[in-house]
Amino acid sequence: MSLIVHKYGGTSMGSVERIRNVAERVAKWHRAGHQVVVVPSAMSGETNRLLGLAHEISEAPSRRELDMIASTGEQVSVGLLAIALQSVGIDAVSFTGWQVPVRTDDAYGKARIESIDDSRIRAELTAGRVVIVTGFQGVDPNGNITTLGRGGSDTSAVAVAAAMGAAECLIFTDVDGVYTTDPRVVPDARRLARITFEEMLEMASLGSKVLQIRSVEFAGKYQVRTRVLSSLTPPDIPVEEEAASGTLITFEEDENMEKAVISGIAFSRDAAKITVMHVPDRPGIAFQILGPIAAANIDVDVIIQNQSVGGMTDFSFTVPHSEYKRTLEIMEREVRGPLGTGEIVGDPDICKVSAVGIGMRSHAGVASEMFRTLYEEGINIQMISTSEIKISVVIADKYMELAVRALHKAFGLEQEIV
Amino acid sequence: MSLIVHKYGGTSMGSVERIRNVAERVAKWHRAGHQVVVVPSAMSGETNRLLGLAHEISEAPSRRELDMIASTGEQVSVGLLAIALQSVGIDAVSFTGWQVPVRTDDAYGKARIESIDDSRIRAELTAGRVVIVTGFQGVDPNGNITTLGRGGSDTSAVAVAAAMGAAECLIFTDVDGVYTTDPRVVPDARRLARITFEEMLEMASLGSKVLQIRSVEFAGKYQVRTRVLSSLTPPDIPVEEEAASGTLITFEEDENMEKAVISGIAFSRDAAKITVMHVPDRPGIAFQILGPIAAANIDVDVIIQNQSVGGMTDFSFTVPHSEYKRTLEIMEREVRGPLGTGEIVGDPDICKVSAVGIGMRSHAGVASEMFRTLYEEGINIQMISTSEIKISVVIADKYMELAVRALHKAFGLEQEIV
Repeated sequence: MSLIVHKYGGTSMGSVERIRNVAERVAKWHRAGHQVVVVPSAMSGETNRLLGLAHEISEAPSRRELDMIASTGEQVSVGLLAIALQSVGIDAVSFTGWQVPVRTDDAYGKARIESIDDSRIRAELTAGRVVIVTGFQGVDPNGNITTLGRGGSDTSAVAVAAAMGAAECLIFTDVDGVYTTDPRVVPDARRLARITFEEMLEMASLGSKVLQIRSVEFAGKYQVRTRVLSSLTPPDIPVEEEAASGTLITFEEDENMEKAVISGIAFSRDAAKITVMHVPDRPGIAFQILGPIAAANIDVDVIIQNQSVGGMTDFSFTVPHSEYKRTLEIMEREVRGPLGTGEIVGDPDICKVSAVGIGMRSHAGVASEMFRTLYEEGINIQMISTSEIKISVVIADKYMELAVRALHKAFGLEQEIV
Repeated sequence: MSLIVHKYGGTSMGSVERIRNVAERVAKWHRAGHQVVVVPSAMSGETNRLLGLAHEISEAPSRRELDMIASTGEQVSVGLLAIALQSVGIDAVSFTGWQVPVRTDDAYGKARIESIDDSRIRAELTAGRVVIVTGFQGVDPNGNITTLGRGGSDTSAVAVAAAMGAAECLIFTDVDGVYTTDPRVVPDARRLARITFEEMLEMASLGSKVLQIRSVEFAGKYQVRTRVLSSLTPPDIPVEEEAASGTLITFEEDENMEKAVISGIAFSRDAAKITVMHVPDRPGIAFQILGPIAAANIDVDVIIQNQSVGGMTDFSFTVPHSEYKRTLEIMEREVRGPLGTGEIVGDPDICKVSAVGIGMRSHAGVASEMFRTLYEEGINIQMISTSEIKISVVIADKYMELAVRALHKAFGLEQEIV
């Protein structure tokens, strides 16, 4: 008898038949006595179709109007799912973001949720209904429709769960949980029964596309128990079995955590390296180099400044692949000449591999184990970056799979920990 | 320098190219110094596609959820049109029904507009923007999305024009105005430069599908000058020329009205006749016959009760074709036996032909001219029904074209009246 939030992705909502499946799964939870709020995505392909029309009309369409258009995909989904539930005898009602309302700022296309009014949803739940709420969208202080950006339905679901004080937020996806690394790279990769939200945050930010990163931040901030589980199982598997499946994103306090030092190996190919040679080592130089990049809205990830030799240093950083050429142009134009640095050198053929684990905090020696493993494989480390629960290395792209497999084995991730 | 409302149908909004055309036409009016509010329909086929998905899931989907789903078609249209206008340098903003808000009752699928708040639209117009408002929809007192039913965008446009005190409401369609009769039946049919809203109301209710009937009622109630004109002309024809084209729906007071007695010949094939023979002629018998039909939500059009002979009479009425069989069943079950009438006789092969004209009020002899014309063509009149500005006859379906042509000629409708 709990309040549970379900989230279903676009693939799960991709056809009438699949929507029926979702309805059957939701109905099962409702019949088991739970109060259920469902947050479905738009039918797969629909958001792209809508945005495609807009971009056919204009190369630079208004973001407000794009949100007006794109938000309809989820609106159709909630209506169809309500009808599907009603057709199997479950009382259900759908709401758009503005009807709840889900209040956001006015950053069209990447709005942030500011508050969720739970009164209307709660009244419908109390009346015995399943409540279906559009993901991905909200309404700004002036009554304009906003969207949260790609993957925003995950964030909507977690935010609704937080606002309602839900017992758990179930994110149904086409994978059955979070793995120690990508099983396509390491066949031995193992599903984690639990992961802390901090580890999940690092995994998500490193390209594990299971959950949108902002939804993980939300889960952490509001301590929402969030579970990633499969939407591909038969919809009528027992509720108890489903409730224990997938991966639970939880909090450090949890006494049942696996006692692993490292939880997973994450990686990302979406990185390119820029090095500015012979930089005069004086205060403010990092800002002067990165200022123009920030002004151009380019995300900088790893940043390294070498030890200064004779008042000169080398300065390296990574940017997303898609921004590689633009970054080189900006550096040539606004850094090299104006700051009197040496050559600007770029390398698009790099990747980032990271070991992530909450246990790292209390265990020394993780970094040296990582570096030793890569050394034994003959892999040169180009850059290193660390956080409390993560060590990342930038290496040549061609060594990525090798590095991931070696590290996965070195940290014993293929073995179940009791 | 007037405030003008434009309405574009689904065909006009049917593709990216056509939306560009609409934008060009709207931009022309804006550049000529007018304040423009645009009400576009959903892209052609879109509403059917959306409702089709819902009906695939359930045979009897919830009307509230259908409105949730169907209303998205217009929401996409307004966004796309705003982007198209912006891309030709016109500042434009779109609003959904609930954003305006357009307030309606809660009769999902056939809601009635109760009020329109003009403040948000007016503020945007004052700021120099073209305002684009979703047709077909509104919001009920509880914040649920409602739709007005098929063709509801016409009504939305006229209602917005009424609320804003617009100088004129231009309904762009794929015909270039209202004709004296259907040109496919009478090649001589002539476009009317003006028609009164009462005549238009009769024409619309008789199957002239140019305008949705509720939009004409709205135009009449709030005295909105409404013009039906072509969306197929080149979008860059001069504003003055376009402003004088099509058919203006106006009011009796207008001194420039054509002085015709009859404005047009309307007709409808969507009728079937039911006759109850040997009905005891006593008070309340009409109600007892038609009560079960009304209870079954079947629309009854023409009703005729013959002069009683020996305390018995015959009672005839017409219903839409689609309700013919159901009506016969109801009559057999609930009227024949219970009321002790004679046989129930049906005839699905009938049609209704009407002469419509505001001038009829002050001219005697229209009815006799009509009956004489039909007599001369050897057409038997089965039923007659009259209103202040209309005479309708029910005749055998096979004579329809013949009757329409003969009446069109008899009333001299092919001739221009100065």
